Amino acid sequence: MLQNLANGIWKISWGEPEIHTPLQHRPMPPAAEKLQALPAAPPLPLQAADFDCQINRRGVTIRLPMGPTEDIYGFGLQLLSFNHAGKKRHIKVNSDPRIDTGESHAPVPFYLSTAGYGLLVDSYRYVTFYMGTSTDRGASSAETAVNQQHQEFSEDALYALKRSKEIRHVIIEIPVAQGADLYLFAGNLQQAVCRYNLFSGGGVVPPLWGLGNWYRVYGGSDQTQVLNLARQLRDEAMPITVLGLEPGWHSHSYSCTYEWSDLFPQPERMIQQLTAENYQLNLWEHAYVYPASPLYSALKEHSGSYEVWHGLVPDFADPLARQIFADYHKTHLVDAGIAGFKLDECDNSDNNPSNWGFPDSAAFPSGMDGEQMHNALGQLYQMTLLQPFVQAKRRTLSQVRSSGALATGLPYVLYSDLYDHKEFIRGLCTAAFSGLLWTPEVRSCQDAEDLLRRLETVIFSPLALLNCWRIPNPPWQQYDIDLNLQHKLLAKAPRQALTAAVRKILQLRLRLLPYLYSAFVDYYLSGRPPIRPLVLDFETDPETHSIDDAFMFGPSLLVCPLTKADQGRRKVYLPVGTWYSFDGAERYDGGQWLQVTAAADEIPLFVRDNTLLPLAQPVTQLTDQPSFLLTVQSYGQGPASCVLYEDDFVSLDYQQQGFKAYTVSRTADGSVHYPDLGASHAYSWQA
Amino acid sequence: MLQNLANGIWKISWGEPEIHTPLQHRPMPPAAEKLQALPAAPPLPLQAADFDCQINRRGVTIRLPMGPTEDIYGFGLQLLSFNHAGKKRHIKVNSDPRIDTGESHAPVPFYLSTAGYGLLVDSYRYVTFYMGTSTDRGASSAETAVNQQHQEFSEDALYALKRSKEIRHVIIEIPVAQGADLYLFAGNLQQAVCRYNLFSGGGVVPPLWGLGNWYRVYGGSDQTQVLNLARQLRDEAMPITVLGLEPGWHSHSYSCTYEWSDLFPQPERMIQQLTAENYQLNLWEHAYVYPASPLYSALKEHSGSYEVWHGLVPDFADPLARQIFADYHKTHLVDAGIAGFKLDECDNSDNNPSNWGFPDSAAFPSGMDGEQMHNALGQLYQMTLLQPFVQAKRRTLSQVRSSGALATGLPYVLYSDLYDHKEFIRGLCTAAFSGLLWTPEVRSCQDAEDLLRRLETVIFSPLALLNCWRIPNPPWQQYDIDLNLQHKLLAKAPRQALTAAVRKILQLRLRLLPYLYSAFVDYYLSGRPPIRPLVLDFETDPETHSIDDAFMFGPSLLVCPLTKADQGRRKVYLPVGTWYSFDGAERYDGGQWLQVTAAADEIPLFVRDNTLLPLAQPVTQLTDQPSFLLTVQSYGQGPASCVLYEDDFVSLDYQQQGFKAYTVSRTADGSVHYPDLGASHAYSWQA
Repeated sequence: MLQNLANGIWKISWGEPEIHTPLQHRPMPPAAEKLQALPAAPPLPLQAADFDCQINRRGVTIRLPMGPTEDIYGFGLQLLSFNHAGKKRHIKVNSDPRIDTGESHAPVPFYLSTAGYGLLVDSYRYVTFYMGTSTDRGASSAETAVNQQHQEFSEDALYALKRSKEIRHVIIEIPVAQGADLYLFAGNLQQAVCRYNLFSGGGVVPPLWGLGNWYRVYGGSDQTQVLNLARQLRDEAMPITVLGLEPGWHSHSYSCTYEWSDLFPQPERMIQQLTAENYQLNLWEHAYVYPASPLYSALKEHSGSYEVWHGLVPDFADPLARQIFADYHKTHLVDAGIAGFKLDECDNSDNNPSNWGFPDSAAFPSGMDGEQMHNALGQLYQMTLLQPFVQAKRRTLSQVRSSGALATGLPYVLYSDLYDHKEFIRGLCTAAFSGLLWTPEVRSCQDAEDLLRRLETVIFSPLALLNCWRIPNPPWQQYDIDLNLQHKLLAKAPRQALTAAVRKILQLRLRLLPYLYSAFVDYYLSGRPPIRPLVLDFETDPETHSIDDAFMFGPSLLVCPLTKADQGRRKVYLPVGTWYSFDGAERYDGGQWLQVTAAADEIPLFVRDNTLLPLAQPVTQLTDQPSFLLTVQSYGQGPASCVLYEDDFVSLDYQQQGFKAYTVSRTADGSVHYPDLGASHAYSWQA
Repeated sequence: MLQNLANGIWKISWGEPEIHTPLQHRPMPPAAEKLQALPAAPPLPLQAADFDCQINRRGVTIRLPMGPTEDIYGFGLQLLSFNHAGKKRHIKVNSDPRIDTGESHAPVPFYLSTAGYGLLVDSYRYVTFYMGTSTDRGASSAETAVNQQHQEFSEDALYALKRSKEIRHVIIEIPVAQGADLYLFAGNLQQAVCRYNLFSGGGVVPPLWGLGNWYRVYGGSDQTQVLNLARQLRDEAMPITVLGLEPGWHSHSYSCTYEWSDLFPQPERMIQQLTAENYQLNLWEHAYVYPASPLYSALKEHSGSYEVWHGLVPDFADPLARQIFADYHKTHLVDAGIAGFKLDECDNSDNNPSNWGFPDSAAFPSGMDGEQMHNALGQLYQMTLLQPFVQAKRRTLSQVRSSGALATGLPYVLYSDLYDHKEFIRGLCTAAFSGLLWTPEVRSCQDAEDLLRRLETVIFSPLALLNCWRIPNPPWQQYDIDLNLQHKLLAKAPRQALTAAVRKILQLRLRLLPYLYSAFVDYYLSGRPPIRPLVLDFETDPETHSIDDAFMFGPSLLVCPLTKADQGRRKVYLPVGTWYSFDGAERYDGGQWLQVTAAADEIPLFVRDNTLLPLAQPVTQLTDQPSFLLTVQSYGQGPASCVLYEDDFVSLDYQQQGFKAYTVSRTADGSVHYPDLGASHAYSWQA
């Protein structure tokens, strides 16, 4: 039976549910009021009778109908596929998802269908979804199938994805479990994903500094070198707001001690000095606790049956383990001024030469087994290290390498060791279908153009990250890793040119900060992802259903990133409607493909009709009281508006007090009306 | 409790066994007499108390100890790994095993350990083996682990496979099952694999023609074109013994009808004409039965719950389904003179764009589920199509894309759509650890050198196959696929040179035929694989433990294939002992690495000390009564012998009557003694 939980959200259950599931460990309660305030949901296109559920020794198998033209999106961060119709997806966390099986750093047992619904399987198991891959025995007859003698003489032709004309099924296999709860979200793609996100508690509101530019420092750096780099970035007027330290800060790593190493003799002083220069500091770690760590003895009895890299695997499904781990981090790191963490390797490796990880059959004191813990670890680890910040009444924006279901409200951004630029752009599109945030971090590059192209993508992502862990000098001084390690920098002229080009790109991020922050507040309020593929906004335009190389950034900007492989030229699809170039000089009719060219330091942006776009004057640093001098760029002729949200940008007070909202509007006569910003600390209008 | 089954073979069981397992469907009974005749086995290095077994809702988990220096081989055909120590292996059939997870066309839940045993898990499940990947919680202490501050600033360094110094465990996870049977085989690597092979019934004895050279014909060919090609090969004096037809012979394919298409209006006549020219004919198929097939209605109730490519999936675990399928093939194809089949796509796809295959939760009338059937299908399909040949009292050598446990006695050779030459060579090494046969087929090539290099490898494999399914003209006339399709052949001079070089390589295969046939008879009698990695013969020489790019061919030849990437030059390790060049001119001390160079049409071969190598004069065709004019090349000075086996080369009479054996021997004084071949039809000595 379908049980209605909220406006447009339904539940259907069979058998005996498992004790540990994403819902049982949900990071946030549903945003019930916001869900209730949504317009009434369209009817769910599925009835209880559409579902068939079998429970046997294998686990649970559920079938539901899938139409021949249904498109399918979601399943978490997916770097290799966009539309999953006709494919098999295996929801198993994997640190190296090199082939298109559905495995991922952040696989989520949640999909969206263009039939008008989203579906979440509440399980940490390695669930397999067959999205219309199979027809029932007897469904075919000699008449319905078309090909005759074999005509295809290449492997590519033979195994190409062919959509069939029959009604097929979605088949969902949940291993081990003897029962299942499914959650259904009614509406078109955007409506269903907003419902899922609000059901997960609503989107993240990051601290403002988290939306600036990040720079992870060379792994071999000591305290002096970190401070020198920080100084150098300021001297170069590089608008960097966050620095990150890599494993070298631990006295032992792989596995970790969570104690400062000899490289950092006075960490408190370093934090103070960085704070004085308006940097936030982020620390790398993973969850595997080395025997020499002060956490070891307290956690030993609250850990899994196997070690990883000689370290304990804390049982974060056990509240006591969470408490021990969180308390330590609060006392020793968060209270000392650390702004966030990078939670590495909470995914699991099947493919790396070293096959690190614990067995699926591992046992945890909470009763979880290894399979469940693998798919849960990212989510639980995020929750654990969010705790010290919540206690300190501060926000964080942190990094994590694995995530899962219902993680929308967790202030963490995913990253990967994989590095294909086009796949990284696809990740920006796919993560949005499951309430996840993803950074296509800039880590290395072939040449100056590649560096700029990757930077242009990353500043239009949730986290604008340069991960320079392998190079002691900034990449704009030398992008070649080996030469950089030898401190052989580029010649002066190309170095200055590249530095200026990088600065300009990073500045653009900060100019868009008020706009982006407001988009995140909207994510919190309405569930609409701040960065999302075109199909989420333009579902009725079928051309958007396969576009995974361009995306919406905030309410109004369409971003068309180029990669080095594009050689300065690519096609972009403008959905039905009217569009403008970023500078407003060009007007385009939508519903067409456009050939665009862009110099290495340019990223094509298109603006929706009837947009008011707030843009700030460039700033280099974000102080405790950030201040933006704004202009509003106006596109189109009709009525338009934009909202600027303001609060203290760092605390959790917004959860009680909400935000101040300033609405700029344009009336039918074309005149733009600016709100009174008298009460604002953050915003002012440029004369 | 360890139960002794035979000389050096033990069984240990827990819980309730599953109904369908490789042993329940074993293709052949154990070769009990041959096992008994082996020297007494060394003691098994494991006691019952070494095993721990847990049975719960996840299935069965078994642990046993693994020492820090133990090397691990096996798990079926493995193209990406050789030594599996420190790795996780997932025994799941996969048509595109592109990453090193243990998945394969022919994964086998069987491994060999240098600790002195082999272990078979009798299960069709997707068993996972953790080969020393994990230490128990508490096994590490701050003192035992060595690395301190993090020093590794590249992903490669970070995730490199590091063997640890602790005692770890083998952990075996069998999903779903509530019981397990393990079979243990005592001895060093070669002894254990011979025991496994004899337990599987002993090695294959192929028909002699199967060991000749194979040529699969262009997929778009009609009957006339096939006959023209056959004629052309004879005109060119190419020693091809088998022709293969691709999907176009079916009236419908993907899925199949098993009926001749309009391209072949007189198949009986074609077969007669090919037979007259001493060709055997092999036909491609897969097991998925199209609705228009004459087999469809009889099989419908004996098939799985889902279709593949609109075709039935026959339940080959059901004897009746096997009977229907086999009888049809006997009546319509085998009795008409077809010599064998190519059983395609009995593996399963997780990765291809089209994700073909049936769900793991599929149900089969026999009670098998989809997971079991995926891992069983290759084995059961082979057994099904062996039946008509057994009934006809004829041998076959056929091709198959998937296989599994206990398949040693099945006359099928594996192949793959993957195509890396070095991986294909590794496959020759790894397949031998599990009683499998593998062909590194020649399918396409970058240039003439690549063609020759690949041919040089394939003639030293179980099946010397040119798979020309994409090109209407032989590759020595044009190796570029597009030009070949346009019938634009190479210029005369390079074409003639390439043709001669190819002919010379293919001739070498036929010159070695008596030697290779005898090695296969030895496989049948003793279980020793005819083609095997060096470590199987030289386990006490530790350098051989990682060599996966050279191998033994028959008792005495060490083959050192080059790939195009080697650019004519590579290193080869000669194990401890004395070695000779193939022509006998050079003598080498073993226990050293040797730099070798080889022209494009040369493959370096090394001969073991004290070898008598029988070599035949080149022949182009194999008649019903093959006849070889032999010389014996003599290497070294000490006592030596070689055995030539003879029978009718095609029937199954050897199973009752055995073989005639002719032993050439060299006594301590260096004189070679030839046996009287008076009774031989096949062999004669060159004057």
